[in-house]
Amino acid sequence: MARLLSLVEDASPHLREIARALTPYTGGARIIGLTGPPGAGKSTSTAMLLSALRAQGKRVAVLAIDPSSPFSGGALLGDRIRMGEHATDPGVFIRSMATRGHLGGLAWATPQSARVLDAVGFDVVLIETVGVGQSEVDVVQLADSTVVLLAPGMGDGVQAAKAGVLEIADIFVVNKADRDGADATVRELTDMLSASRREITGPSWRQPVVRTVASRGEGGDDVLDALARHHSWLLDTGELAGRRNERARAEVEAIALRQVQAEFAGLHGGEAVRLLGKRVADGELDPYAAADELVAGLRH
Amino acid sequence: MARLLSLVEDASPHLREIARALTPYTGGARIIGLTGPPGAGKSTSTAMLLSALRAQGKRVAVLAIDPSSPFSGGALLGDRIRMGEHATDPGVFIRSMATRGHLGGLAWATPQSARVLDAVGFDVVLIETVGVGQSEVDVVQLADSTVVLLAPGMGDGVQAAKAGVLEIADIFVVNKADRDGADATVRELTDMLSASRREITGPSWRQPVVRTVASRGEGGDDVLDALARHHSWLLDTGELAGRRNERARAEVEAIALRQVQAEFAGLHGGEAVRLLGKRVADGELDPYAAADELVAGLRH
Repeated sequence: MARLLSLVEDASPHLREIARALTPYTGGARIIGLTGPPGAGKSTSTAMLLSALRAQGKRVAVLAIDPSSPFSGGALLGDRIRMGEHATDPGVFIRSMATRGHLGGLAWATPQSARVLDAVGFDVVLIETVGVGQSEVDVVQLADSTVVLLAPGMGDGVQAAKAGVLEIADIFVVNKADRDGADATVRELTDMLSASRREITGPSWRQPVVRTVASRGEGGDDVLDALARHHSWLLDTGELAGRRNERARAEVEAIALRQVQAEFAGLHGGEAVRLLGKRVADGELDPYAAADELVAGLRH
Repeated sequence: MARLLSLVEDASPHLREIARALTPYTGGARIIGLTGPPGAGKSTSTAMLLSALRAQGKRVAVLAIDPSSPFSGGALLGDRIRMGEHATDPGVFIRSMATRGHLGGLAWATPQSARVLDAVGFDVVLIETVGVGQSEVDVVQLADSTVVLLAPGMGDGVQAAKAGVLEIADIFVVNKADRDGADATVRELTDMLSASRREITGPSWRQPVVRTVASRGEGGDDVLDALARHHSWLLDTGELAGRRNERARAEVEAIALRQVQAEFAGLHGGEAVRLLGKRVADGELDPYAAADELVAGLRH
């Protein structure tokens, strides 16, 4: 399995056959995204959810997405070590994804890795990513259910989070709920949510706000309950199929774009695109006209 | 100018004419990238470099790249406010880029925004981005010169930074150099650099390590000196043309890929890609076969 995932990360030419062989076995796993700002306690929360899911007898895979940063290596290594208690459990698989340098990056590798883990029989695939960086957020919101983690007293807190969080969260978790300010954070979130709900008509999912103290393992079952309710809602409304179709669409598009990019790189042995770059840099050609020539090259 | 940049960020259909009109006027600005982990003092350092460049009479534009995170709004707003002293200076232009939700995102909007600022006559375009997230790092390393900022006592520090920093930095700045541990950080960096140099043959750029205390404005001129030396090196070796060709190549490719993506979305009014997604989600078709169909659709 680890080797299959390496083939995905290395963009192996064998992926084509592998994807074909695995496709009939996919669709059984629940894909859960977990994200939040640095310091909210994502790794501890992942560890807590792992324990809670294992107690229910579920087989769980974790895809921990490095923000692909040159600066993050150390911290993430630490995170992985903290998950040590699950290291010897055959019902748990943890993969830290390093996608830096890949064309297409996360959008390309993550859905395919989730597909592998789904096909080999995991009940849950948990995608954990820090909520910084566009591609990281794009990836996590393609899950069946997305959990957004906050903690009290985090800088501008909920206000800062307002911009994009409302749209991507299915479930909010206020972690470190034993700390000062937890009530205020929950209240701010609740106010924000009821304000935004007024704009919505028709029956819709009401994002719950769950409190946890992940470091003491408190609240894991409450998060799982909220996830179970969300899953039922997804099934009842047909939204699950919609999300999975959308995820597959994004995956297909990412593969196709990468294929096109490889074709660009291959046009006249790479000379075509290099020459177009040079002409643009020299001010002879504008980049749109150059892009037109590149795309036209595909059709010959 | 602000309106031109909005057209870029909104992916306006007028970009094509604008790019054509601006192209002959580009190439005069130096494009400088500034990146580093959270907490290294990027905004303060940007403000310091702004002052130092203004003292040399340079017109300076700053593109501050939001990590496109739902969580970062507040912090970045704060950063912008700290640049207040330059707010009324007509030789300074500061733009905070919000690219979340865009197809192609940063890779698409940043080089085009830099092109606009170059064409309208800025001497320096400073691209400031937090070194988290693949696309953010990809963008900053397409500058003429890339400055990587570190500070003493930052978690795993230099060790954590090792992975990707060596390749992207032209100049290292150890900020907060008045703090404990600054010497150790400089030494670690220096050791790391001399170890990596042994593997290089031929005359090459030796990445300097500059100390600053940006909060007190100390070291700004030293950074500018290092940048000036790097610029001379770029000119002498022909590397400047190489980097600019490569930047233009990446820009052309990003525009072309976005164009292809728009064509995918338009195939049969978007039905083609949606149906392919559904067939993959239903397990009828593997994503590679689906991508083949999508790419084949381009050629009809």
